[in-house]
Amino acid sequence: MSPAPFVSLGAMSKVTCQIAMSLDGFVAGPRQSPDDPLGIGGERLHEWMFAPEPHPADAAVTARLLDGNGAYVMGRNMFGPVRGAWEGDWRGWWGEDPPYHTPVFVLTHHAREPVEMAGGTTFHFVTEGVEVVLERARAAAGERNVCIGGGASTVNQVLAAGQLDELHLHIVPIMLGGGERLFAGVGDPALEVVEAVTSPAVTHVRYRVVR
Amino acid sequence: MSPAPFVSLGAMSKVTCQIAMSLDGFVAGPRQSPDDPLGIGGERLHEWMFAPEPHPADAAVTARLLDGNGAYVMGRNMFGPVRGAWEGDWRGWWGEDPPYHTPVFVLTHHAREPVEMAGGTTFHFVTEGVEVVLERARAAAGERNVCIGGGASTVNQVLAAGQLDELHLHIVPIMLGGGERLFAGVGDPALEVVEAVTSPAVTHVRYRVVR
Repeated sequence: MSPAPFVSLGAMSKVTCQIAMSLDGFVAGPRQSPDDPLGIGGERLHEWMFAPEPHPADAAVTARLLDGNGAYVMGRNMFGPVRGAWEGDWRGWWGEDPPYHTPVFVLTHHAREPVEMAGGTTFHFVTEGVEVVLERARAAAGERNVCIGGGASTVNQVLAAGQLDELHLHIVPIMLGGGERLFAGVGDPALEVVEAVTSPAVTHVRYRVVR
Repeated sequence: MSPAPFVSLGAMSKVTCQIAMSLDGFVAGPRQSPDDPLGIGGERLHEWMFAPEPHPADAAVTARLLDGNGAYVMGRNMFGPVRGAWEGDWRGWWGEDPPYHTPVFVLTHHAREPVEMAGGTTFHFVTEGVEVVLERARAAAGERNVCIGGGASTVNQVLAAGQLDELHLHIVPIMLGGGERLFAGVGDPALEVVEAVTSPAVTHVRYRVVR
């Protein structure tokens, strides 16, 4: 009950990931373009989140998607349309008040000044690779978690680097037939299922990376 | 309450599939060979079935794996080692009394006389393709189900042909990094989750194909 000033609660901070995957392993469909950033059929991966009358299991997951996160990491394709379109004044897909309300670190090859949005979201652009982006995100998150939002390449890099603590995978029973493949080149991390809940439209599985 | 002799109960027979898949989408690992029929690491897909003290969720699934099946369909690689080794007197991996106790239809390019085993299992070799193998299996199963046992190519063909009614997928949180990929070229069947149960080692998801 008394404060324990010499024990760092920072050790409880985790690197987590929330991502929706088709049954055939894709987190975006084929032929992504500025007009179709999720590729053909890719928007079907997220329908469960936006259903007018969501299944209770999905509603419970959606309500907690952003809980406990003190920073986000995402790839540059998740931040904006494919190369070329956004280096100027692109400010993300999420309008002037993005849902993150924390620092968001965008892994990119293109340096850019931070972009401060309403509601506490600031986009930072990091060109030094996955280890540096995680270091900066951890520092920003403090005792809260760092959440990797996607896309596949970013998640795969974090997993391959042995930096992921928890993966919350939303397995959607559709086939995209092509696109951005999750779990390519990630090595063989030791994963353990912590929890699985399902609706007819999506199975939510939470994995812990065992060390 | 009275018998309904003109209603065929045969209509209740389903084509189902039981298969274990790695999180990166493989049902066998890379470099399959006669000495290593499941490929590198592939045996890890089935460890939950053979654990000395299985988790109750896994034990319940294992106990019901063969329930209600009146015939099985499998690919030739599941029946025996890769091409060349088995055309002679190979009698399958399962000893003289295989666990099936029903007709088993092997989809192959190599014609061969049926092989009758102990305990009611007979292996039939069908060279006319997926539609014919299903027709023969349905006829043999009668009112019971036809179960597709694998491998990936056979399951994918049945799914692509629109002939699967139910898929029981055992998602094992390992990465095989290569091998036989499930769900390649299957089109976009409409699937719905019926049930999901999990242990730390594997998530069992039952899907219904919606028509």
